[in-house]
Amino acid sequence: MNSRPASVSVRSVDEYRAAIDELLRPLLTRPAETVALPRALGRRLAEDVRSPIDLPVFRNSAMDGYAVRSSAVVVAPVTLPLTGLVAAGDAGTTPLEPGSAVKVMTGAPLPPGADCVVPVEDTNTDEIVVTIERGRTAGEFVREAGTDVRAGDLIAAAGTTLEPRHIAALAAVGQATVSVTCRVRAAVLTTGDELVPAGSALRPGQIYNSNGIALAAALTANGAEVVSIAHSGDDPAQFRAKLSEATERAEVVFTSGGVSKGDFEVVKDVLEPMGGQFGTIAVQPGGPQGRTVVDGVPVLSFPGNPVSTMVSFEVFVRALLRAASGLPAVREYRLPLHNALARSPEGRRQFLRGKLLHSAEPDDVYRVPTAVEVVSGPGSHLVASMAAADVLIDVPAETTALAAGALVRVWSL
Amino acid sequence: MNSRPASVSVRSVDEYRAAIDELLRPLLTRPAETVALPRALGRRLAEDVRSPIDLPVFRNSAMDGYAVRSSAVVVAPVTLPLTGLVAAGDAGTTPLEPGSAVKVMTGAPLPPGADCVVPVEDTNTDEIVVTIERGRTAGEFVREAGTDVRAGDLIAAAGTTLEPRHIAALAAVGQATVSVTCRVRAAVLTTGDELVPAGSALRPGQIYNSNGIALAAALTANGAEVVSIAHSGDDPAQFRAKLSEATERAEVVFTSGGVSKGDFEVVKDVLEPMGGQFGTIAVQPGGPQGRTVVDGVPVLSFPGNPVSTMVSFEVFVRALLRAASGLPAVREYRLPLHNALARSPEGRRQFLRGKLLHSAEPDDVYRVPTAVEVVSGPGSHLVASMAAADVLIDVPAETTALAAGALVRVWSL
Repeated sequence: MNSRPASVSVRSVDEYRAAIDELLRPLLTRPAETVALPRALGRRLAEDVRSPIDLPVFRNSAMDGYAVRSSAVVVAPVTLPLTGLVAAGDAGTTPLEPGSAVKVMTGAPLPPGADCVVPVEDTNTDEIVVTIERGRTAGEFVREAGTDVRAGDLIAAAGTTLEPRHIAALAAVGQATVSVTCRVRAAVLTTGDELVPAGSALRPGQIYNSNGIALAAALTANGAEVVSIAHSGDDPAQFRAKLSEATERAEVVFTSGGVSKGDFEVVKDVLEPMGGQFGTIAVQPGGPQGRTVVDGVPVLSFPGNPVSTMVSFEVFVRALLRAASGLPAVREYRLPLHNALARSPEGRRQFLRGKLLHSAEPDDVYRVPTAVEVVSGPGSHLVASMAAADVLIDVPAETTALAAGALVRVWSL
Repeated sequence: MNSRPASVSVRSVDEYRAAIDELLRPLLTRPAETVALPRALGRRLAEDVRSPIDLPVFRNSAMDGYAVRSSAVVVAPVTLPLTGLVAAGDAGTTPLEPGSAVKVMTGAPLPPGADCVVPVEDTNTDEIVVTIERGRTAGEFVREAGTDVRAGDLIAAAGTTLEPRHIAALAAVGQATVSVTCRVRAAVLTTGDELVPAGSALRPGQIYNSNGIALAAALTANGAEVVSIAHSGDDPAQFRAKLSEATERAEVVFTSGGVSKGDFEVVKDVLEPMGGQFGTIAVQPGGPQGRTVVDGVPVLSFPGNPVSTMVSFEVFVRALLRAASGLPAVREYRLPLHNALARSPEGRRQFLRGKLLHSAEPDDVYRVPTAVEVVSGPGSHLVASMAAADVLIDVPAETTALAAGALVRVWSL
């Protein structure tokens, strides 16, 4: 058995990303679902919501006090008969008798005929009459109907990712439910006979399976709903069966492992005959990649190394997934490199783990990163650096070294 | 019945916030709980996690290829007998016979005696012998045990809010569970006869109850676990019963409504005799506030207006709650005001809803806000502006007007 041929074509990151974008494009036009407002936090509104009502719904008192006609209190102090009380929640349809006062609570409807409210602080009463110590003019402490929101006003636009402030406004205009974009249903299928679950004892040759948990966390953090996390050994029949389970439930499936040039590349072995396209991308880490459509569902195959898997997700999938979920775009910016980069492989775009450095400005200014520090070596097995890094540093394929201070492109994690 | 006395003392925002901080301080030292790693996303690590293992766990191959002794491939091409195969997951304890080659898969243990790996691309084989086209030196394509992580290395420090990258690293070192800070259990109890649930038809004098949903969303977004959302009418017995249910389950209870100077202030009426301290804070919106300890549980009482409720939460509680949950601090900074502020009430610190304005710089630089625009009036009933605002603008009590361009303090929402 001669080995497999070297990959037919080495593609650039941008070419491969464009191919993945094309494959996953249907995820960008997701159907909507109706959810109860309290469950809509963090979801993306699928349609404009306009207020069905005026706010305030009715003309009401801004204070606890006495509703009067302003013409009756021009000269103060003045004592008026107290003819009633309107509490919040009362219908408040009884008109104010001219020359009298009605006690009103904050938020209570103003009696027809009243045009201002005298705050309780400026009054004295024996419950039969009320003495107004200080007059008020028409409109004072009165909230007119519709002065905050008019029926038909836009409360939140389609595409808004719902934060507490939006939930509050939607609740105030009485929305019990909202139409939000469905989350992308994603499945993760890890492979490899050498992998054992966390919490087990390792036998010689075994390592912990971290990709299932890690990819699920990354998917969740980027707006997807993880519908299954499964693992298959290197047996093709087992892998095929687990893959079918995944494609039945998910709209996109991520596999890890089994994509390079070994003798037991279960993912490639099963998927290539099904039309899967496997090859090497000019990137480090994460070179070997595959994509297949199985039962109509896109299946993206990442290499098995934990760092390669995570970088593959971040470089090829995260931006589209965030767009599909209405999350803010991945932030990209340019920063000077804090430390020199002695070498970078020619012909392969490199994504290094990095950490932002900030100036030591006082806390009351917007914290702007001033530089980025490399925290990983070029290898793909540097798990330790994963936890320390908050950005990816994008080193172009043609770059072989970088001086300290060189401007590099940085992607937020 | 004369009305209640004007509030005994008007306190400043800072004084009241200090009192609330004092009351809620126990929330900052929360106990820990053990959760499965996949459920730990976004939680705060309660203790340092150190790796129990080396990573790589064992010396292994970085490539699919042939494990050889480098001294045997100094002169290439050279043909060596192929004496075995080690797949990932194999124990790989059989030593390499001198002058031979063993096929190894990526991640497979290196046979004792081998000191480098020749990638499959640089070889040819008939399965009996392998021809090495290009020699390699000792160490090439070999990952030594412990070069990534040493047993005992810190993987994530106590206090870390777990992001996917931390989850990935913790999974890679085999952590099945982690110890995380318990979330603050919070309950919301809204009050008011005039409130009806969203989705109902409004009768005259009624308005929608938005505070329950809105406060729950704000609590959730700031790291708390909302254990109940309840509503009480203005009946003291009903309020007392619902409050007991809340304090049984929660570590902090938020009430809305019933705190001002009307005749039916159920929250104040019930809680003041229980030792509750009610009064007016020199703030707009959100002046009337109360705090009580009921059955050992702090109960914070906000005014009922939806905007007042949300601003009360943001100004008095949010920072401490975020600290208790290990979330990043509320960002405060100074920005020039885009539009002039014609008037601000003297003697009351005002929190206006604002919207950040950004410069039109290209997208690849860090987006820094350049100014802030007021989107709300000074009233407390401006629900519409809530959805539009992404910051609070903090206008000092002594300020009565601000020119366009004046520097103001801004709190992120």
